Amino acid sequence: MSAPTAQGQARQILDMNAYRPGNGQSRPVERRLANLGAASVLFYRQPIEMVGAEGAWMIAKDGTRYLDFYNNVPSVGHSHPKVVEAVSRQIAQLNTNTRYIVSVVDDYLEALKALLPPELSNVMMTCSGSEANDLAIRVARAATGGTGIIVTETAYHGNTALVTEVSPSALKRGSLPEKVIAIPPPGAAHFGEDIAGGFRASVEAALAEFGRRGIRPAAFLADSIFSSDGILADPPGFLAPAVEAVRAAGGLFIADEVQPGFGRTGDAFWGYARHGVTPDIVTMGKPMGNGFPMAAMVARPDHLEQFCADVGYFNTFGGNPVAAAAGHAVLDVICEEGLQENARETGAHLLAGLRQVAAGDARVTDVRGAGLFIGVDLADEAGRPDPAFTVQVIDAMRAHNVLIGAAGRYGATLKVRPPLCLTREEAERFIEAFRAALAG
Amino acid sequence: MSAPTAQGQARQILDMNAYRPGNGQSRPVERRLANLGAASVLFYRQPIEMVGAEGAWMIAKDGTRYLDFYNNVPSVGHSHPKVVEAVSRQIAQLNTNTRYIVSVVDDYLEALKALLPPELSNVMMTCSGSEANDLAIRVARAATGGTGIIVTETAYHGNTALVTEVSPSALKRGSLPEKVIAIPPPGAAHFGEDIAGGFRASVEAALAEFGRRGIRPAAFLADSIFSSDGILADPPGFLAPAVEAVRAAGGLFIADEVQPGFGRTGDAFWGYARHGVTPDIVTMGKPMGNGFPMAAMVARPDHLEQFCADVGYFNTFGGNPVAAAAGHAVLDVICEEGLQENARETGAHLLAGLRQVAAGDARVTDVRGAGLFIGVDLADEAGRPDPAFTVQVIDAMRAHNVLIGAAGRYGATLKVRPPLCLTREEAERFIEAFRAALAG
Repeated sequence: MSAPTAQGQARQILDMNAYRPGNGQSRPVERRLANLGAASVLFYRQPIEMVGAEGAWMIAKDGTRYLDFYNNVPSVGHSHPKVVEAVSRQIAQLNTNTRYIVSVVDDYLEALKALLPPELSNVMMTCSGSEANDLAIRVARAATGGTGIIVTETAYHGNTALVTEVSPSALKRGSLPEKVIAIPPPGAAHFGEDIAGGFRASVEAALAEFGRRGIRPAAFLADSIFSSDGILADPPGFLAPAVEAVRAAGGLFIADEVQPGFGRTGDAFWGYARHGVTPDIVTMGKPMGNGFPMAAMVARPDHLEQFCADVGYFNTFGGNPVAAAAGHAVLDVICEEGLQENARETGAHLLAGLRQVAAGDARVTDVRGAGLFIGVDLADEAGRPDPAFTVQVIDAMRAHNVLIGAAGRYGATLKVRPPLCLTREEAERFIEAFRAALAG
Repeated sequence: MSAPTAQGQARQILDMNAYRPGNGQSRPVERRLANLGAASVLFYRQPIEMVGAEGAWMIAKDGTRYLDFYNNVPSVGHSHPKVVEAVSRQIAQLNTNTRYIVSVVDDYLEALKALLPPELSNVMMTCSGSEANDLAIRVARAATGGTGIIVTETAYHGNTALVTEVSPSALKRGSLPEKVIAIPPPGAAHFGEDIAGGFRASVEAALAEFGRRGIRPAAFLADSIFSSDGILADPPGFLAPAVEAVRAAGGLFIADEVQPGFGRTGDAFWGYARHGVTPDIVTMGKPMGNGFPMAAMVARPDHLEQFCADVGYFNTFGGNPVAAAAGHAVLDVICEEGLQENARETGAHLLAGLRQVAAGDARVTDVRGAGLFIGVDLADEAGRPDPAFTVQVIDAMRAHNVLIGAAGRYGATLKVRPPLCLTREEAERFIEAFRAALAG
């Protein structure tokens, strides 16, 4: 069980490269800060003004083209013409709520459900992954009668009041509520080589602690690629014993697919499928509409009935026909352009290239991942995670026209997460930029 | 202080006209139910399949054109060409998050802020009014150090876990948490004619009850047109003493403008402005993007800083340039087409016409409202609120090609809420349909 204040520290480190008000900033930066104030989240100490984007590239106002390895929302490629066309066509025709039947919506829901376990047959459409996870926790609590939630220690599951409680990485101060226990990520050093067994042991320790607190478990909530914990993908299957343990205690497994879903891991369409588990609830978001605000929670009808008996739930924008059109176009593009296969193949090429760089530089201590989601650990001369060096590399990558961010407990893991349409040439370009950034 | 179970009853009544599974439903209905399950919210016992919409009209698959008096999202008119054009243009060019500067976003935020009190200078963009209210409650708690929230007894403020707690009308069973007190709506019968004084007394009683519970107040959260409570608009100004009372006790006033905002009340751009009060926090949603999923919370920089010191908040889709383009187009259309003025004038015409109908039918016990937001109370022969009769009128209106819903504690208030582009002819048509529906 980690101390949340440690997570607060991790958060501070992750924020090291964020913009802070000061002298000498440009007018656009001052303007943004006046508009968003303390809630401003500008990236880079000298933020970038963007004017366009296409494929894997973003275009700044000064004409610079940046290779986007950071944003996993425009997953089929920025400004993809098929998604643009679908949104433009539908919004001109009909945009309403789910109080009426619109065939576009049910066509999409059926296409989406065909990709999911058949028992998860009810979909609740929302506007954001946060809303989807907020719902999932309540559905799990209503279905089990328990309240305890297990997450990993640098997890991030969204921004509502409820999901902030299960997102240790968002806490700057304070501690997790009694009903939430954060466990070490899979592969935490003290478990040695047995990642599956070690992770199961962590879940069982949390369940035992809930027992001592007199709290019944409701769910184990995990992003199966463990993005915020530093991208922990291997070995496939390690998640299964942990899921078994929570089920044996009466809890559900909620798969948060906001990060690994929609083909990103290459091996499977959903991250959980790499681990051979069937979740009780699946949530999804970010890449679902390639930037059109949409997300969903998928559950079993009997679980959903319990929740709906307590509360009348309606989401005004959730499941509108424009979102459905965007989402359907995304599924079509992933299939037609073979983006899951591309994630696997170009991802493998990228991983191999980055490992080659690592072999020649002791400061790159690990390169791991699945498909087009790769984590690269950076360390100091003594082999300790080095967030300051990571920020230096991120800045140097920017100077080489590559956008990339960091993750992990120490903020010392590069989060390599380009659009799924990435070409082999673009992967090469990234590897060269990384090599150059390391060279200073 | 109302018993939340009474609100559960109100909710059941409001649901009376909702679709329930059964025999003889069409294939599209069965399909929808298979997709959404218990979370299905289809309107009418025989739901309508829609294929298009324009202006104040929705077009069903069978070719029937319905006058839409129910949905206040497409507030400048369904499929408005200016909004369609703005979304289509921006989504083809750049759709990203607020980690980068995009001038379209700050142009919009400045246009929006120009319509708000100057001290509320920081905007947090979200995807839904629920997310905005979820944030507002947390900002108010962080800013005041208090936790108590006062709402009205049939209030609805959204669907996240936190805002469901302050939405008595969403509760089907269970009770409000200790930190939330629901007060009678303005003008509740037991206060007689002094609406302002009576409502202040209700707020003061809730503050005294918080005192007994050892809870410090954080905020009074209200929709200034009291939509869910049955549309309570008059007299303008009645809200001011209640706001004074909560401020005197150290709490904030959060104006939930999801319903009355963006010109709907005719007298002012925001609902709170009709009451001559300046809120501490303003939230907005539904009509903000005319259907593009977007919402916002606006606050004072010092209040926001308190919240941001505790939690790192980032909203992936919130404040994206496509939402900004949609929102800016909405502001432009409201201004260029004089929609606030139209809401005032066409609304007054509609109100007068409905009062004329009421004068000739004892079952129409009250007609009240502001601009294009009007409540019509329906009663039985003895003058008691009659939800069954209301459902009958709603069904009959549908037969006359008008879509309308109900609100209020008893579900016996017609919620008259057409798009702001409503013409005088369309208003006349509604009045005639209402007259015909009453005639049976």
